[in-house]
Amino acid sequence: MSAAAGAVIDARSGQAARREHILDAAEACFVRNGFHRTTMQDLAREASMSPGNIYRYFDAKEAVVLGLAERDRERGAVLVEAMERAGDKRAVLMAILGRFFHDITREAAVLRLDLWAEATRNPAIAALVEQGDEEGRTWLIEMFEAIKTSPACDPATLFDAIAPLMKGIIVSRALAPDYDASPAVAQLHALIDAGLSGSLPRADAETGR
Amino acid sequence: MSAAAGAVIDARSGQAARREHILDAAEACFVRNGFHRTTMQDLAREASMSPGNIYRYFDAKEAVVLGLAERDRERGAVLVEAMERAGDKRAVLMAILGRFFHDITREAAVLRLDLWAEATRNPAIAALVEQGDEEGRTWLIEMFEAIKTSPACDPATLFDAIAPLMKGIIVSRALAPDYDASPAVAQLHALIDAGLSGSLPRADAETGR
Repeated sequence: MSAAAGAVIDARSGQAARREHILDAAEACFVRNGFHRTTMQDLAREASMSPGNIYRYFDAKEAVVLGLAERDRERGAVLVEAMERAGDKRAVLMAILGRFFHDITREAAVLRLDLWAEATRNPAIAALVEQGDEEGRTWLIEMFEAIKTSPACDPATLFDAIAPLMKGIIVSRALAPDYDASPAVAQLHALIDAGLSGSLPRADAETGR
Repeated sequence: MSAAAGAVIDARSGQAARREHILDAAEACFVRNGFHRTTMQDLAREASMSPGNIYRYFDAKEAVVLGLAERDRERGAVLVEAMERAGDKRAVLMAILGRFFHDITREAAVLRLDLWAEATRNPAIAALVEQGDEEGRTWLIEMFEAIKTSPACDPATLFDAIAPLMKGIIVSRALAPDYDASPAVAQLHALIDAGLSGSLPRADAETGR
């Protein structure tokens, strides 16, 4: 490799590392003070960078949130690749979901909760949240389609059945530092199994309407 | 009734009505601007009262939230009384939960979501949220104890199993104006029935650990 090419790569990895560093700082600020209260100045201080320097990487708080979402997506993609190479897709899906909800840090859960609250009155954040939800939804529905064990399984209905539970696990984790996700994860697995085999609880029975 | 006693009652009901009016105004402000961003001045403006007058009823935003929680509790008590008079407690419990999650307004769901986010960094709000959760928990556990159909039912475990789903329904309602709670309510009912008969999905099986 030429020295010039090496310098380009160093500069690139330096930039990528700086970006990561800002995202870590943002995560810390958002969790400590909330998304709304955090300013780009707070971010700069937390990252020990000048505000001008921060703006070279992210032009607004919303862009930082987008960066965090992209990072989550990249991390998720690694898991998904492992799953797609594996033979037993159902087992790997269950393991990925189980690990995600067991291992999600309180910080990550608080940030998610905060963004949901912000989404109810900030259209830019609402759009980001919706985009993220939609990607997760599409991926899970494709998975369910690939591994369903009965023609009676409707992957979209199955997704709708598990979505509130998944959100509720994150809220529970954010609110209780010692929250144990095991019972909820067991339910999530049981619901998915019921859905894949076409035997979800029906929505029309006795809903109190 | 003497004129004096009448005047006392008028003054009392006037005070109660004023309190209700402030709570309605608070709900509107919190939903529009978020709990954190709302000031006592905003509240006064929304209620068309002077700030000094507002402070005669509530000495801080936290007291307003406490007032909202008390009002929820009083409204809940009416349902509970109906339930306790009814013969089939299980059916009434299911109907109360179903109605609650079907009918919760987007405004009420947004407020709840906002308070959860605020609870992660405001100890006074965290204490209020925890107190409310604890009351709901105690009430549901007593109900489950009263109506369980198998000695294998553990009411506390059943509560832990449904708590994240109930939180997730509220988040889903807050995020999507057209959210239909029916599938999630059907699951909630199915989970409670499974729990009452001692056949909840077990937490130790295949949790991805």
